[in-house]
Amino acid sequence: MTELGVVHRKIVRADRVATDRLAGFGASMVHEAMGRVGLMKPYMRPIYPGARIAGSAVTVLLHPGDNWMLHVVAEQIQEGDIVVAAVTADCTDGYFGDLLATSFRARGARGLVIEGGCRDVRDLQAMDFPVWSRAISSKGTIKATLGSVNIPVVCAGIAVNPGDVVVADDDGVVVVPAVQAEKTAQAAAVREALEADKRAKLAAGVLGLDMYNMREPLAKLGLRYLD
Amino acid sequence: MTELGVVHRKIVRADRVATDRLAGFGASMVHEAMGRVGLMKPYMRPIYPGARIAGSAVTVLLHPGDNWMLHVVAEQIQEGDIVVAAVTADCTDGYFGDLLATSFRARGARGLVIEGGCRDVRDLQAMDFPVWSRAISSKGTIKATLGSVNIPVVCAGIAVNPGDVVVADDDGVVVVPAVQAEKTAQAAAVREALEADKRAKLAAGVLGLDMYNMREPLAKLGLRYLD
Amino acid sequence: MTELGVVHRKIVRADRVATDRLAGFGASMVHEAMGRVGLMKPYMRPIYPGARIAGSAVTVLLHPGDNWMLHVVAEQIQEGDIVVAAVTADCTDGYFGDLLATSFRARGARGLVIEGGCRDVRDLQAMDFPVWSRAISSKGTIKATLGSVNIPVVCAGIAVNPGDVVVADDDGVVVVPAVQAEKTAQAAAVREALEADKRAKLAAGVLGLDMYNMREPLAKLGLRYLD
Amino acid sequence: MTELGVVHRKIVRADRVATDRLAGFGASMVHEAMGRVGLMKPYMRPIYPGARIAGSAVTVLLHPGDNWMLHVVAEQIQEGDIVVAAVTADCTDGYFGDLLATSFRARGARGLVIEGGCRDVRDLQAMDFPVWSRAISSKGTIKATLGSVNIPVVCAGIAVNPGDVVVADDDGVVVVPAVQAEKTAQAAAVREALEADKRAKLAAGVLGLDMYNMREPLAKLGLRYLD
Amino acid sequence: MTELGVVHRKIVRADRVATDRLAGFGASMVHEAMGRVGLMKPYMRPIYPGARIAGSAVTVLLHPGDNWMLHVVAEQIQEGDIVVAAVTADCTDGYFGDLLATSFRARGARGLVIEGGCRDVRDLQAMDFPVWSRAISSKGTIKATLGSVNIPVVCAGIAVNPGDVVVADDDGVVVVPAVQAEKTAQAAAVREALEADKRAKLAAGVLGLDMYNMREPLAKLGLRYLD
Amino acid sequence: MTELGVVHRKIVRADRVATDRLAGFGASMVHEAMGRVGLMKPYMRPIYPGARIAGSAVTVLLHPGDNWMLHVVAEQIQEGDIVVAAVTADCTDGYFGDLLATSFRARGARGLVIEGGCRDVRDLQAMDFPVWSRAISSKGTIKATLGSVNIPVVCAGIAVNPGDVVVADDDGVVVVPAVQAEKTAQAAAVREALEADKRAKLAAGVLGLDMYNMREPLAKLGLRYLD
Repeated sequence: MTELGVVHRKIVRADRVATDRLAGFGASMVHEAMGRVGLMKPYMRPIYPGARIAGSAVTVLLHPGDNWMLHVVAEQIQEGDIVVAAVTADCTDGYFGDLLATSFRARGARGLVIEGGCRDVRDLQAMDFPVWSRAISSKGTIKATLGSVNIPVVCAGIAVNPGDVVVADDDGVVVVPAVQAEKTAQAAAVREALEADKRAKLAAGVLGLDMYNMREPLAKLGLRYLD
Repeated sequence: MTELGVVHRKIVRADRVATDRLAGFGASMVHEAMGRVGLMKPYMRPIYPGARIAGSAVTVLLHPGDNWMLHVVAEQIQEGDIVVAAVTADCTDGYFGDLLATSFRARGARGLVIEGGCRDVRDLQAMDFPVWSRAISSKGTIKATLGSVNIPVVCAGIAVNPGDVVVADDDGVVVVPAVQAEKTAQAAAVREALEADKRAKLAAGVLGLDMYNMREPLAKLGLRYLD
Repeated sequence: MTELGVVHRKIVRADRVATDRLAGFGASMVHEAMGRVGLMKPYMRPIYPGARIAGSAVTVLLHPGDNWMLHVVAEQIQEGDIVVAAVTADCTDGYFGDLLATSFRARGARGLVIEGGCRDVRDLQAMDFPVWSRAISSKGTIKATLGSVNIPVVCAGIAVNPGDVVVADDDGVVVVPAVQAEKTAQAAAVREALEADKRAKLAAGVLGLDMYNMREPLAKLGLRYLD
Repeated sequence: MTELGVVHRKIVRADRVATDRLAGFGASMVHEAMGRVGLMKPYMRPIYPGARIAGSAVTVLLHPGDNWMLHVVAEQIQEGDIVVAAVTADCTDGYFGDLLATSFRARGARGLVIEGGCRDVRDLQAMDFPVWSRAISSKGTIKATLGSVNIPVVCAGIAVNPGDVVVADDDGVVVVPAVQAEKTAQAAAVREALEADKRAKLAAGVLGLDMYNMREPLAKLGLRYLD
Repeated sequence: MTELGVVHRKIVRADRVATDRLAGFGASMVHEAMGRVGLMKPYMRPIYPGARIAGSAVTVLLHPGDNWMLHVVAEQIQEGDIVVAAVTADCTDGYFGDLLATSFRARGARGLVIEGGCRDVRDLQAMDFPVWSRAISSKGTIKATLGSVNIPVVCAGIAVNPGDVVVADDDGVVVVPAVQAEKTAQAAAVREALEADKRAKLAAGVLGLDMYNMREPLAKLGLRYLD
Repeated sequence: MTELGVVHRKIVRADRVATDRLAGFGASMVHEAMGRVGLMKPYMRPIYPGARIAGSAVTVLLHPGDNWMLHVVAEQIQEGDIVVAAVTADCTDGYFGDLLATSFRARGARGLVIEGGCRDVRDLQAMDFPVWSRAISSKGTIKATLGSVNIPVVCAGIAVNPGDVVVADDDGVVVVPAVQAEKTAQAAAVREALEADKRAKLAAGVLGLDMYNMREPLAKLGLRYLD
């Protein structure tokens, strides 16, 4: 049962070294390395292009049109965290702007992932404080209801636990459970190495059909070539 | 980390008596009794009007366009269960029709909640096998990839654990953690009793403004009446 | 400027006789009689089929996730009114259910048009209290912020003034300015009379091409028939 | 190249007997019998539940907000036809209502499939003239621009040629090329016969896992059962 | 009643000095200064990033797929105006491109806000003529039907009167009634000054919880901290 | 009937000279030159701004969540081609990334148009390999089902035949039948020449009302100017 009105101060963050390695691979590579799970819905988009980050999730649950708990979560941020904000119902209001970003940055946050709206886009880009959101909206919010901080939440279709690794870039947002961070980084590294080799072959004109030995299974399924 | 390729045969189902009591209250009442959490997104709609059910969740994770695991989950259904099907990416294909419904019913299922599409609507209504889905679609699916059965899933924005109570009717779908079933049923009963009294007063013309003592707080916030 | 925190108690309602005549014509006919303006966006749908009503608009402006002002508007309802509820930002929460419907009905309301969500659909249909909404959702709302009652609002793309006539049925919701109610009813009556004649001809196999003398203008624009 | 301003009077309609057989199978069965192609996008929905029809496509291409060509296509309708209306851009306006339905019926049409809006839903249901559309809207249209009749069109994602068989019911709309009508009807009949047998087994509690011999391929892919 | 076929040549424009001051604050700040009203729906997006403008609204009402009135409105543009184009039904067609932009600019327009589609994005960016629209689309439009110029319109959920101030940037589009322009500019200036101070404190690590004295009200509502 | 499991190796490509000329005009101009047909739905967007290409369509039909056929189509690419990928049901998965782009480029492809999702956006922009897609998503796909290569497909609402010219830029994607390529290029050239003259006049302050002689037809329809 989702508990409202609580702030968990102690969470176990994913290993920092593994987290930082995951940032280098990017969302798509990490998603593959996890076995194609953990990806937030594609309506989560960066408010400006080019950012690529990873960090430990500090979670917060908000109500529609109410951003009060974003002030509560600010206090729980540590250097290297990414705030993950879920909302109890679909809402595109502008929960977050440059003042909160200034505060989050001062506490050490690397970015924000929010299943709601964001504003002050121009300022946030100037500050280089990246946000992934489902909307951009000037709509102001109130401060009236209690949500929670650092409880398990569902954000854009993915269950996120405090301390999980969040990897975000232009492709989207992927969540790696804290205990899997290192293993996933290793799998991504292996995959990346393989891809470098494949890329060279493909660039030289070798076909995936041959490189992956696909011709036989395709023929078995009945693929026919016609002239 | 979402584990693929596993079937958990042993799950702890919510108390049957509490589950059946929750069915009587309906989704909106149960949602309120839980403190306004647990509601799936409103794009989950019944394929025909009028059904109201509750049951224990048997969960399944599917891939886009692949309904193979619905056959795997069928074996795990017990009398009184509701199957909750999540998909790893948005997909409206018609994963479920009258043949699977016949099988699910034979195993004791009370209905299906699927974050995908459903077909054979006419037959399902004739069978009175209720389904809540995000789409109706004839689109056929394949049987090629492994998902999982009875793992924790996210369906339409809500984390569902095997054994949780699912309450569904024309208003939508609410999920009650198994351990909270009885407490929630009690809270719903209290609320329902209170509502009966309120309903009588409102029907007699008493205003909510007076019945809930709202005039003072509204005035304090500055509400002004103009003639 | 949209004024928040005010309740206008005195509004000029459209003529009741004209209003009741408009109910008989239905939304599409009235929309045509107005010159094809005044129609709310088609995402406004009845929560159950078959209702056809008209009434004077009593307006209310709500905030996302907050239904407090629906209690305030209840007091302003007179026999024959339809409540029109706008929201300051998109929100599908369930602002309205059977308790408020009981109150609205006791005050004389004929129905509700709300650019938000509605719940207790089963009960509302049993009561025959029609609602046109953009969503059905169990999601509960709070009572924390001031909106306004009987100010001009925009609902589903249409500007609505208190006292305007609202005509709603399975086709959608049309708004007729109060001062135009009688004229629009007359225009609709003329149109309906003409349609009866046209319908008879079309049923007898006469083509619109001939009945409306379309062949010549089509030929002028260059329409070519090929065998 | 889509030719505008032409009406093809001679089209080759699909075999009537095969067409009528296809009506009996319904959209989902026919879609499967075709090899899982030919299905319009699932946003095409019936304006009222329960209709199941098949007929030969008479096609028409409309412009946004302009229904003039629906009068032109009326003349080309023969007994047993279904009009398929495409639009050159997304538009939900109410292109079609009870007057045109009266005319279409008088010419022998069995229904309409339109990638736009429909109105007079109440009257159309009373007439039992089924329509599949992407929206219900009172919005009136003009008569100003030339489209075409009986040219190949794309409707809701599917290429439709004049004379093709259209099968539509509560599950959606499927298009069968005229030359494939008989073969598809045969395939559907075979499939239906097989399903009757499967349905009986499933109703008796046999699992799809066993009936379809799925256990071995699932095990090969690594499916693990945990207690 | 929305009057079709009229062009109002005389409108009262908002004070130019206040208008220009509002441009400097941007949409989100102005929206807050107005009391959180006046914001168009967030689907209104700039066709390229970085523009921030304010101007007096010259309004125009269009029909779906018909841009004729954009030529009519061009004549009514004065230096410093922003054209606000509403449409009588949802339509994403490309009503506006580089030719009209050339004309609008020559007349003194600062930009366009249109609840429809826009094209020639590349050219418009090269000209630095900013547009906020709901879509980008090459789809051509016709010139067949009369709308109106400088009547009150509803654009993206907001009622706009001719002469109102429009403020638009990367966050969205806000409308300030002409008579409120100066008062709103003053309120925004006050707010901005306060924010500068707050920003400095937050950057220094002060928490919003303390700066806004939120700890006590949160505790009163029952917020609990757990270790 | 859409044939699955076939690869057509021989297709007739549109004339290269005409194709290259069409690239220079861009999507909107070509769409107009075709008589306002051939435009894909506006949800097809470039993954980064600024690209403008034209090429011969090599088509491929995919299933939801399965990108196997993209490897098959790679072999059929010739210098100057654009791959057009349709999917049998709506799916936003990330079918295409930098490895496939490397292969497509090595074969001579100028870009990709896909009615699905794309990933590795950062790398694709670095490579300057343009893609028009309906979504950006990291979601991985499988290789299990046969589609087809170089059959007629429907992509984003437009029927595309192998060899047709595809013109794509920031405004969207237009398809020109191969046999119409030259004629369309000529029509676009004429149109462009006319526009240069019009642009100069409009820039000088001449109104479209006068330049296009619109005042008389507007007056005939009853347009009234009010002071």
